Amino acid sequence: MRVVFIGTGNVATILGRAIHGAGHSIAGIYGRDTVKTGALTNLLQARENGPIDSITAEADMYILAVADSAIESVASHLPIHQKLLVHTAGSVSINVLQKAGRNYGVLYPLQSLRKERVDIPVIPFLVDGNTPDTLTIIKDLAASLSDKVVVASDAERMKLHLAAVIVGNFTNQLYTLTADFCEKNKLPFSVLFPLIEEVATRLKESPPQSFQTGPAIRRDQATIEKHVSLLEEYPEIKNLYAIFTESIQAYHKNKR
Amino acid sequence: MRVVFIGTGNVATILGRAIHGAGHSIAGIYGRDTVKTGALTNLLQARENGPIDSITAEADMYILAVADSAIESVASHLPIHQKLLVHTAGSVSINVLQKAGRNYGVLYPLQSLRKERVDIPVIPFLVDGNTPDTLTIIKDLAASLSDKVVVASDAERMKLHLAAVIVGNFTNQLYTLTADFCEKNKLPFSVLFPLIEEVATRLKESPPQSFQTGPAIRRDQATIEKHVSLLEEYPEIKNLYAIFTESIQAYHKNKR
Repeated sequence: MRVVFIGTGNVATILGRAIHGAGHSIAGIYGRDTVKTGALTNLLQARENGPIDSITAEADMYILAVADSAIESVASHLPIHQKLLVHTAGSVSINVLQKAGRNYGVLYPLQSLRKERVDIPVIPFLVDGNTPDTLTIIKDLAASLSDKVVVASDAERMKLHLAAVIVGNFTNQLYTLTADFCEKNKLPFSVLFPLIEEVATRLKESPPQSFQTGPAIRRDQATIEKHVSLLEEYPEIKNLYAIFTESIQAYHKNKR
Repeated sequence: MRVVFIGTGNVATILGRAIHGAGHSIAGIYGRDTVKTGALTNLLQARENGPIDSITAEADMYILAVADSAIESVASHLPIHQKLLVHTAGSVSINVLQKAGRNYGVLYPLQSLRKERVDIPVIPFLVDGNTPDTLTIIKDLAASLSDKVVVASDAERMKLHLAAVIVGNFTNQLYTLTADFCEKNKLPFSVLFPLIEEVATRLKESPPQSFQTGPAIRRDQATIEKHVSLLEEYPEIKNLYAIFTESIQAYHKNKR
């Protein structure tokens, strides 16, 4: 398949590498920033490049990988018509692409993508298309990149994006607050890495509720009080400690 | 080294397998439950077993792997004297073992240990001892099981146990609430596994705050409002969404 990228950020870079690596050809890279456009053109061995309003490359799919808030306006000004245009956003409706051309869809990588990453992580894709034929083309491209391709409507994709924010961003904020707590107490945060990995990877075996352990589910009030007393200088963590302890105990209240 | 276990739960089972697997000998298994004691004796090829008040096996170290709340009372009634006794708890003082014998310490596995697990996870150990010589023996045993052995005082161990509760139990509660949200919306929770793994494993590369992404840090109010509107029927998640969004924005307020 011949693919054009509009945008030069994390998504364009990692998706571009995955698509190039899967044997497709990158027909063009278009972006606002000449330096970034040039660099990505080299990296992906793209045939053409230029500013967004100058798209001339012929391709089977045009992938719009720009900021969520820019998708609609960029799409409506693209000098391409009757082409297949997709966006890559979790929480933007497929319908914002309606004006741009006859065929459109969504190719949303449900993963945290960072340019800096050397190897490409496993990327599940949520896909959608305005017609069955369009959807088939998008699904086929996604299937050439990943074993996990799920057809998802706007509503389903937005809910999974919300779920991704919780298990990705909120979890990462718990790591952040804990890393700071360790640093302030001169303790090595890295000693927690094996536990963090274990908790994340065992989900493949059984649902998370079956793995819950710790003082909250044991209703071990002595340990809970010791922990709270250690958090006097950390009001934000103390508040989260109370909220999560209550949440765990309420969730498992009929199980002990 | 010759080791005796007092207790037959998750910690005794997994630590026992690790210690047996490292070439040490299990001199005895003592517990309240005859069936469990017998099963663990077979699994670890232990030489003797019996109820807790009947310990006769000679060993270099007696590992007390019972419930936190039982450690002090069990330790004070053990028919062993002048022996090295350790407990395996994160939030129990080393001093509760003072009565039991001349030498005592702590061998705390900072990991979520479950009997059912087929392979043994990477286990960091926090160790402590009542004398330098005792500490050396405990450190040596731990070092034969793990590359990550940290000497930690009561205060340090309790703080790291608290940190483990946050990154282990609280994170698992976020997974639990999200799995339920997916189930109620007929969406596949498993499609989030690669993201969850990525967020957990990339901590080895850089601190978590450097990886924060998503609508909160982008101050993408349109997406935040869409997400909140999807949570009308999930007041607990809605509350957490507001708390974490505020936490992320406050944390990164000077960085954008």
